[in-house]
Formats: sequence, C-alpha cells, structure tokens
Amino acid sequence: MSNEKIPYKIYLTEEEMPKNWYNVRADMKVKPAPLVNPGTLQPMTAADLAPVFCDELIAQELDNDTQLVPIPEEILGFYKMYRPSPLVRAYCLEEKLDTPAHIYYKFEGNNTSGSHKLNSAIAQAYYAKKQGLKGVTTETGAGQWGTALSMACAYLGLDCKVYMVKVSYEQKPFRREVMRTYGASVTPSPSMETGVGRKILAEHPGTTGSLGCAISEAVEVATSTPGYRYVLGSVLNQVLLHQSVIGLETKIALDKYGIVPDIIIGCAGGGSNLGGLISPFMGEKLRGERDYRIIAVEPASCPSFTRGKFAYDFCDTGMICPLAKMYTLGAGFIPSPNHAGGLRFHGMSPVLSQLYHDGYMEAVSAEQTAVFEAAEFFARTEGILPAPESSHAIKVAIDEAKKCAETGEAKNIVFGLTGTGYFDLVAYEQYNNGTMTDHIPTDEELAVGLAGLPAQPEF
Amino acid sequence: MSNEKIPYKIYLTEEEMPKNWYNVRADMKVKPAPLVNPGTLQPMTAADLAPVFCDELIAQELDNDTQLVPIPEEILGFYKMYRPSPLVRAYCLEEKLDTPAHIYYKFEGNNTSGSHKLNSAIAQAYYAKKQGLKGVTTETGAGQWGTALSMACAYLGLDCKVYMVKVSYEQKPFRREVMRTYGASVTPSPSMETGVGRKILAEHPGTTGSLGCAISEAVEVATSTPGYRYVLGSVLNQVLLHQSVIGLETKIALDKYGIVPDIIIGCAGGGSNLGGLISPFMGEKLRGERDYRIIAVEPASCPSFTRGKFAYDFCDTGMICPLAKMYTLGAGFIPSPNHAGGLRFHGMSPVLSQLYHDGYMEAVSAEQTAVFEAAEFFARTEGILPAPESSHAIKVAIDEAKKCAETGEAKNIVFGLTGTGYFDLVAYEQYNNGTMTDHIPTDEELAVGLAGLPAQPEF
Repeated sequence: MSNEKIPYKIYLTEEEMPKNWYNVRADMKVKPAPLVNPGTLQPMTAADLAPVFCDELIAQELDNDTQLVPIPEEILGFYKMYRPSPLVRAYCLEEKLDTPAHIYYKFEGNNTSGSHKLNSAIAQAYYAKKQGLKGVTTETGAGQWGTALSMACAYLGLDCKVYMVKVSYEQKPFRREVMRTYGASVTPSPSMETGVGRKILAEHPGTTGSLGCAISEAVEVATSTPGYRYVLGSVLNQVLLHQSVIGLETKIALDKYGIVPDIIIGCAGGGSNLGGLISPFMGEKLRGERDYRIIAVEPASCPSFTRGKFAYDFCDTGMICPLAKMYTLGAGFIPSPNHAGGLRFHGMSPVLSQLYHDGYMEAVSAEQTAVFEAAEFFARTEGILPAPESSHAIKVAIDEAKKCAETGEAKNIVFGLTGTGYFDLVAYEQYNNGTMTDHIPTDEELAVGLAGLPAQPEF
Repeated sequence: MSNEKIPYKIYLTEEEMPKNWYNVRADMKVKPAPLVNPGTLQPMTAADLAPVFCDELIAQELDNDTQLVPIPEEILGFYKMYRPSPLVRAYCLEEKLDTPAHIYYKFEGNNTSGSHKLNSAIAQAYYAKKQGLKGVTTETGAGQWGTALSMACAYLGLDCKVYMVKVSYEQKPFRREVMRTYGASVTPSPSMETGVGRKILAEHPGTTGSLGCAISEAVEVATSTPGYRYVLGSVLNQVLLHQSVIGLETKIALDKYGIVPDIIIGCAGGGSNLGGLISPFMGEKLRGERDYRIIAVEPASCPSFTRGKFAYDFCDTGMICPLAKMYTLGAGFIPSPNHAGGLRFHGMSPVLSQLYHDGYMEAVSAEQTAVFEAAEFFARTEGILPAPESSHAIKVAIDEAKKCAETGEAKNIVFGLTGTGYFDLVAYEQYNNGTMTDHIPTDEELAVGLAGLPAQPEF
C-alpha cells in the first residue's frame, strides 16, 4: 500500500457537492442535431413532445444554451442518500500492474440500483411529480434503469410501471423482485395490456420480446393513461445533463488535490455514463482552456462509434419514436449476445455523437472475453465486482496503464466504474467455466442494419 | 429532508480511523468461559488448538487481558479499500416515521462480500499468510463469509478452499460464482474429498448437507493438508476482536458530533456483527463510565438468547469442535426455514453470552414476516435493500423510534446495517407474493435440542 498523500478514496463534503448540473451543449460550437418527426422530417417542438415527456424535461431536452442548471433542493436531498460517490485512487491496481500511472475511478455502484442510473431516475421522477402526474412508464432490459426508477418513484410516492423484456423478466427474476420490492409493477413485454403488445403477440406468439417492443408498450401506456408520462434512462440530452453530476463531483475531487487527468475513459452504450463523466472536462476542452484525451469504450459486438454511421435514425427498434442524429448501426441491427446488456444499443447519444464526429473524443471497441479478464483481475485486486458494462472501461484503463509501464510516464488515468455485477453472475459463471465466446459482426451483418436507415431530413 | 447540522453520512478521514482493535474481554469482570476439550472436559490450550487454527489467531482467542490490539499495517491498507463504512443519519426514515428520535445506522454492506464479514476475513487471512501457510479452509452456508474470505485470499495470494452446504451450492449459484471469480475452490458438501464426507454420503446418499457437515470437512482438510489451517467467521473471541472496528468507527463518528446513543441495536446470529458494533460502548458500560441500552435481535425461529440455555455445547452440529459456554438451543437443534441464513446458528458468541447472562444487554426475537415488512419499508425510504439478517435490527430500531413518537422523546438510536440483500431475492419474492410464513419452534421442539447438551465440565 502506498503512503502518498492522496487518500485512497476522495469523498466530497456536503458543502463541496455540486449545486448545478452542467449542460455541455452550451459550450458546443456545433450543437447536437435536433430530434426529428419521422413523418414530417421536421424538428420536434415542445408541443410535439408534450404527450410523451414531462414539460420541464422537454425544456431541458431542447435547451442548448443554458450552461448551469440549478439542481432542485429535493433532488439534492435524494442525492445525499447515495452521493457523493467515492473517487477511488486505485493504489492496489497500480501496484499489481507495476505502473507509474496514477489510476482513479469514480465508483457509481454503491446504491441499490447498482449503477449511475439513479442520478437521472430521481430527476425525471421529481419533474413528473412536480407536474402533478400520477406515475411514469418505462422499459427495462438488463434492469438497472428500471430498478433505479422504481427506487426514485418509491421515494416520491409516484406510481411506476415497468415493461421488462420478457426474456429478462424470466431470466433475471432477481432484478424483477428488486423493482417489486420498491413497489413498481413489472410487466413482461410483449403483454396483452397494450395494443402494440397484443398485435405483436398475435403475429409472433412465441416471442420473448425486445427492447424496441417494450419501449412501444411503455410509450403507448404513457400517452393513453391520464396522468402518466414516459421516461428514458439514456441517449437523451436531459439524461446527460442529470448525469453531469458524476463528472462534476470527479472534477471537484481532483481539483481538491491538484490532479489533472491526462486520459478519461468511460464505457458507452447509449452514452449516459460517459456523457456525464466527461462533461465538465469536455467543457474545458470545448472552451479551449485545457486538453484531455477522452476515450469511449464500446463492445465489439455492438460498435456504433467505431463501425456505425453518423445519420438520423430511430432510437427504438419499434420505430415509433422521433429520429435522432447519432452514430448508429441501424434500428434494425440485432447485436449478437453480449452480457453487457446496457451497451447493446444500436445508437448513441446525439451529444456524444456530435462531439465524436467533431474530433473531441476517441472510441475503441473491446471483445467480451478480454473485458471479463479485466473484470476478474480488477475484482481480485480492488475488491469490487464490476458490472460487465463498466468492465469495458476497466479494460482500456488497464491497457493505458500498461503502456505507461513501458514508457515510464506517470499519467493520470480516470475512468468511470458505473456499477456492480451482482446481477450478472450468469456471465461470470460462463467466464469462470471457459465457455464465454466473442461475437463480432461481419461487415455484411452491419450492412443489413445500416441499409434500413430512414429517409434523412434536409434542413 | 432536514437541514440539521449533522451530515447525512459521516465518513471518517484516514487519520481519524481506528488504529487498534478493542478487546472487550479486557474490561469484563467475569471473563467468558474457556473453550473446552469435549473428551477431557479441560480448557483447550494453544497447543491443542494449533493443528486447527493459525498461531497468532489462537493467541488472540485466548487473550482475555490485552485491551488494545494494534491493527497490522497491511490490514489497515486493505481496510482502506472499503472502509470507513458510512455512519448514516436516517433522516428519511425519521421523517416517514414522524418520530423525534434521531436514528443512525452503520452500513457495512458497501463491499463486494455484501457484509461486515470482510473485517475478520482479511485479518484471519493475513495471519495465515504471515505464518507462511499456503491456504485456508472454511465452510459457508448463506455464502457471505465464504465470499469475504475469497476476497481476502485473492488479495493476499492465498489459496482458499470453501466447503459450501450442497443445498446452498445448488440454490445460490451466484454466491458460488462470486467466490470462484475471486479464485476460491468451492466444493459442495458433503463431498467425496474427505473421510467425513464419504462417510456421510454412504450413510445418507441423498443428503443436501448441513453447516455442521461442511465444518467437519473443512476442519479435516485443514488438519490433514500441510500448510493449511481452518478459519471461522463468527462466534469466536478473535472474530469479535476484529469486528470491533465497526463499533470503534461508529463511536469516533458519533463523538465527532457530540452524539451519545441511548439505544444500540444489532442482529445476532453467532454474534460477529453485534459484538463488533457494541464493543467500545460495552467497554464504557463495563468500566462504569456511561450507560447504554443494548439490544440483540434474533429470529423467532432460532431464539438462542431468548429461549436457549447458558451451558457448554458444541459449536458445530457435527460435534467435532471444542465445547463453548454460550446460550444455545443444542447442537442438534434444527431451526425451521428462515431466510436469514446468517442467524440460523444454534449457539451464540461466548463473550456476548456472558455479557447477556450478567445483565449488560437485552435480547428480543422477531418473526420473519415482520422483519421483511420492516426491510421493505426501509428499502423504499432509505434506498438500501437490506439483508434479511440486518433487517432484524431495522425492525427493532423502527419499533423503538415509534415509541419515541408516542412519548415525544428525542432518543438517539444506533443500529448496525450489516449487509445488503442482493442475494436474498428469493426471500423477497416470497414476501412480495405473500407466501412467506413464520416458524416459531414449540417448547417441545426446543426441548429436543436442549436434551442433547453434552456433559458439563466442572472446574
């Protein structure tokens, strides 16, 4: 164990905690492209979005100008339950890797949802409550978002209806029971409760469901039930705004000890964690104040940044939601099985897509066996059992630290440890038994998804 | 959310952390009775214990005099990975209960083992390593202890052989996989690897195992394999010594803000958590410096304190270990099913047993449906999904806070939240479905276990 002055874990005091979210769009010269109505190919207005989303969240979604958004007192109160999350100096990992690099990770897994998803769940539930709504609907696949939303709704006394992809509902009964313990109703999707569910079941009686179908059901219930709106845990601009609390806390903690990161690494599925972690650093970069190397890590099985196309596409595989301009593999792309369920999204946050397109960040992909190798090494060294999603960032952080060991550079490496792997032990079992395989789509497979891109708007 | 000056969570700085364990036996006027050889009925000496336990741990086990034991530097280093654990002010719970009481809980679940067990696991693994051993053996039922020991051994590069009760091995595959991820070998017990396992399998071919049998196998392997010793996660004096870090941190955090607890509550199975939490407070009480109400909470299905007998008994159901003087239901007592696996031990720590016998603490029992009701209420209010074991303390803390609401007293209530319930969702599912039942042993059932007590030593 090192005796350096930087503590093992940096916790902020309540006074040091950020009081505002940071909206990185305010500092972007090229703003992310607007959401577009798939019928008219015109930008969605607040009025267009009002039947689906809460009013204040729509305002946040469309606001590309306000740099600092005060975090409401009630949300700050809830954040106190599980925030600040620790910024951990990975002394043990550095020692095991025999690297001169200094490695830090922001650990978001120390709450019952097991991930950073709670940061946006409480914000979205709060605005729904403030609008006088009775409840919210959402979909969940892996279950982290559904769990987080259930917790937030339980706290605020809001009804929560979760449509859970049927195969996950059956194969992840524990996630389901956590949500039920928090008072959410959890319905396997497709269900007989909605028109779209009944239609899909009639056409495909044996289907085990899909995220696209679950989104469609959640949106249908939200728009057809008085007092309900739909909420989403990633991709959207508003989600990145709420998740900026991760990066802000990280920056305050680093500044406290005069640490300037050289490399910032995050896993990327829809972009909620990566976008949140990097936002204040990206802000400095955009304003020309400081430079950082920023690396997005995605699964090789679902490589939207590294092998996708920057184009308008549907966010849902059901193709009922607005179009977003993003790096995408096509809404019809079906990723081969990968245990990092939270990274199996065909698209990417429009904000991050624009930043990547404009050269402000890099992206790499990693294969899952290599990711689990890093996960196991990390667990044994740092104690924490990481989620498969988070382990993508671990893998690349280790790779970078090894490079430092070769060059002798004492770089500061910061990565986001988004969550824990307690509900991913089927995957760990496969890895432990040596039966885990990698699935990298061929160019031909990718071409199928990309061929299905919708007509592109011209404005 | 309250605006009082006491923060939501009190974290100690590295400088404030305890540097010594506290040995409560040093301040006990009546010392706990010694372990006794079941054959000779004479106290076990260090030499008698040497084939089973590590030398330094035997010294700690037998030392009733040293008050402060320095925590080795290496263990302090490991503690930094997950300690200090937060002392949380339960503002949300107080508000929901509308009580003038101030409720605090020491949360030990924020590490991958999911409980306080890691505090002693690292200590025991450290002394094994220091003695130059190759590895350690142990048994595990619910799996928290096995997980904690696997983590500690992975960190120190020590081999770890876990004998897991076969029914748990099969029904809790996730726990098993966490241990394997940390590099432990996990063997379902009874196994064909040991003499005792083969004997039991020959006599009872279809048996699903028992904790007593797993202990017997682990001890046999430890004593017959060069370079191995056996380690145990509860009951023993040494374990309470290591776990005193919980209470010491709690006391330092409370002292920092001038808070004096009126009531201290902990769940009690073998006593590792309760003994650790209360130790420095009990010390003050024993030395006559201050008085506290201290309450042990045990399951109504396994009521060793409230309905057991204070007598010498075997610690294991296999009846191969030394006799300990403790509150016991008899080594042959088979508790009816209760999901709090960590509280299903027929006996109790000899230290706590003596203190209870001498009137220094109270004990109550709780039925599991009431415990899960408290657990769900707590989860929805404070965010954390508690382990069933921990929820026994939650239940009584809520009861005491409700009494304060009636009397108007602003008592300070401190309880131990020993762990998380991520691996107990089968139990939560039963509770959510309304199919959970209570099992309270009849007087006749208790009489059977107590009738099997061994001959009592006279010295």
